[in-house]
Amino acid sequence: MKIYYYNRLSKTKLTRLFKRPSIESKIIYSIVDPIISDVKRNGDKAVIMYAKEFDKFTGSTIKVSQRELSEAERKISEEFKSAIKISAKNITKFHRKQIPDNYLIEMEKGVVCGRKYEPIENVGLYIPGGSAVLISTILMLAIPAKIAGCKRIVLCSPCKGDQLDRSVLYIAKLCGIDEVYKVGGAHAIAMMAYGTSKFKKVDKIFGPGNQYVTAAKSLVSIDPDGCVIDMPSGPSEVLIIADKFANPAFIASDLLSQAEHGVDSQVILLTDKLHIATSVSKQVTIQLKKLPRKTIAVQSLKASFILLVDSIYKAIELSNEYAPEHLIMNFTNAEKKLGEIKNAGSVFIGQYSPESAGDYSSGTNHSLPTYGYAKSSSGVSVEMFMKAITFQKITKVGLKKLSSAVIKLATTEGLEAHANAVKVRIKNGN
Amino acid sequence: MKIYYYNRLSKTKLTRLFKRPSIESKIIYSIVDPIISDVKRNGDKAVIMYAKEFDKFTGSTIKVSQRELSEAERKISEEFKSAIKISAKNITKFHRKQIPDNYLIEMEKGVVCGRKYEPIENVGLYIPGGSAVLISTILMLAIPAKIAGCKRIVLCSPCKGDQLDRSVLYIAKLCGIDEVYKVGGAHAIAMMAYGTSKFKKVDKIFGPGNQYVTAAKSLVSIDPDGCVIDMPSGPSEVLIIADKFANPAFIASDLLSQAEHGVDSQVILLTDKLHIATSVSKQVTIQLKKLPRKTIAVQSLKASFILLVDSIYKAIELSNEYAPEHLIMNFTNAEKKLGEIKNAGSVFIGQYSPESAGDYSSGTNHSLPTYGYAKSSSGVSVEMFMKAITFQKITKVGLKKLSSAVIKLATTEGLEAHANAVKVRIKNGN
Repeated sequence: MKIYYYNRLSKTKLTRLFKRPSIESKIIYSIVDPIISDVKRNGDKAVIMYAKEFDKFTGSTIKVSQRELSEAERKISEEFKSAIKISAKNITKFHRKQIPDNYLIEMEKGVVCGRKYEPIENVGLYIPGGSAVLISTILMLAIPAKIAGCKRIVLCSPCKGDQLDRSVLYIAKLCGIDEVYKVGGAHAIAMMAYGTSKFKKVDKIFGPGNQYVTAAKSLVSIDPDGCVIDMPSGPSEVLIIADKFANPAFIASDLLSQAEHGVDSQVILLTDKLHIATSVSKQVTIQLKKLPRKTIAVQSLKASFILLVDSIYKAIELSNEYAPEHLIMNFTNAEKKLGEIKNAGSVFIGQYSPESAGDYSSGTNHSLPTYGYAKSSSGVSVEMFMKAITFQKITKVGLKKLSSAVIKLATTEGLEAHANAVKVRIKNGN
Repeated sequence: MKIYYYNRLSKTKLTRLFKRPSIESKIIYSIVDPIISDVKRNGDKAVIMYAKEFDKFTGSTIKVSQRELSEAERKISEEFKSAIKISAKNITKFHRKQIPDNYLIEMEKGVVCGRKYEPIENVGLYIPGGSAVLISTILMLAIPAKIAGCKRIVLCSPCKGDQLDRSVLYIAKLCGIDEVYKVGGAHAIAMMAYGTSKFKKVDKIFGPGNQYVTAAKSLVSIDPDGCVIDMPSGPSEVLIIADKFANPAFIASDLLSQAEHGVDSQVILLTDKLHIATSVSKQVTIQLKKLPRKTIAVQSLKASFILLVDSIYKAIELSNEYAPEHLIMNFTNAEKKLGEIKNAGSVFIGQYSPESAGDYSSGTNHSLPTYGYAKSSSGVSVEMFMKAITFQKITKVGLKKLSSAVIKLATTEGLEAHANAVKVRIKNGN
């Protein structure tokens, strides 16, 4: 990995270094848009056509049967089941704390206001196939959806041939999902967003995907006939801050576990010690050799770097500016600096907190804001499967108290009917 | 207003009746897109050019000076100030309850996970000009932003001539905003989303606007170089449920206060009593005559209707399906039915709770999901000006407990480096 010195970089070079590989979104939108329009117009027929063309689906119906779902458990190893159960238990425990409280306040006598949360009724979960089927993502999306109380939870995943991976079906069933579709890509997103004669549209779509899926999610999210989505997304990334006490082998393993995700992943190490920088670089080369996904990791390491900074303080400042999806604080007394972290998706504190623990089993969610969106967005949570409804109950006495303010502001805005809705009530004898 | 009978409508006719006026989003995107690209490429020069062309701005600099801000208070009437203060006090009191709690859980010995909220650092508020300058919207956006702790709060509003409305500046200053720009439209949105040499980009844009502003917000929200937005939006709307005890004059005043918003507003009354339907229709005609914004209201009443249903139960069912931005429950014991309301932006309970009370002064937010988005989205809240960061601190003992699960799931997904990040730590002697 290339090592840079913060003090030797101009501001322009520094900005360029931290700039994420740019996403040619407009080009991808232009590829995906016709597919979405086709599904919107032609429904099931178009969905099946694209499933055959793009997913290499060979079956006749994309809906997974109840028999397939109930038979999925067979041939699943006990070791796998136990791994899933440990993860599911922790994810459930962590996310249960997110159920939001309703509240009610008496603003003044006769004016009571409040807010209550309700689950989103229909949600669609997208689970990518491709180079690595992210079965753990099912847990990360389905568990919060269930805790939120969503009535209908639908899962779509691309299917080569006619059978979805048994483990996908097993986890879906374990999480209480009984509506699963063998379909992926932009056409699956369009099917969920608009509905077809066989598929009732959902209200919100969750889940990661390749650039086509991401583009499709964006496009349906700005179509008033479509639906909202969990968050914008880009390639996965990690930023590690390490001091002289950090173990270079640990750091290298974390950099590589992000680098193996995809060729467009970005991994960054900030350290205040040159020997850490050089040792990590060597360790990366050693550990890389044994990796099955070596070719991918080599590719993504090209956009990655090690930056030597003056202090951990500086490293935190740069990290906040970068807003990494994953931040590993591998330095002494890291916990005490957590308050200084302003922008990050999920934070891993100390040397025994690898990112992969959070990816699977610690309990936190691994569906996180990438590409700098951690400045403005949160990872997937129970609240994202719900929405808040505010309400007010006002008596005649209460309305009288508010009346002067309402009438004055309404008339200032030139909205006479708004003022009138108060006047007509105040005048009323009852 | 036209009266329909639920029992006499076919399913198709019913669906058509409740269908909102469709939004030609693609056409508007194609108009707005070149403006956004121009601002993205040419920065301040393009912003000023469009401000002169579209807003009819005649000044030389769009940034409001500190002098203008501090002088705004002069000439503001005491009556207006007191109206603003009543509203601001209630909005503050209601929104303070929304500050989210952080939490920390010991998942098992050696595995501590948690979540903390941080304010979004840079936020942009858009306040529309046009037929009615919605000064109250400044309170609805700036107060939650301040409570959230956003460091930099920027306000943009279109400016005809060279002076923004004094009341806009007065309220901005009162809310602690000192960065105000005399610019509106798609070009203001682009300026906030991308930044220029004079304007530092924001992380999230809030606020209502006309169809061009809405389209611009959508487009920057799907551009990875842009920024996220508060929520998708469409024209304003109200749905009222009334029984035989409701006062037809009150209902008519509520229907009209929504109808005067814009020609594309939709207002709906559901009632189980024919005499209420007919009396309300008459009252609408009477009250309409005196309204200054009569022409607008007449227009929007065309897409509006009264529907006679069998029961309040049925009305609630239809309302949940429609998911109105504003729902007025003007019937006996309405409060007891609040639990049955699953989809709505804000709810007004009982006959003395007009929508206009919530629009200005009760304390709830008036920036709400329209166009059916209440099925999946919430109105503006303090949480929307913040984001959550999760974190985990794991000890070696804790990691050992998670290790079998992490390693099994990582290898199942084919992500060997993920497994390795745990193995290398467990093996380590320290």
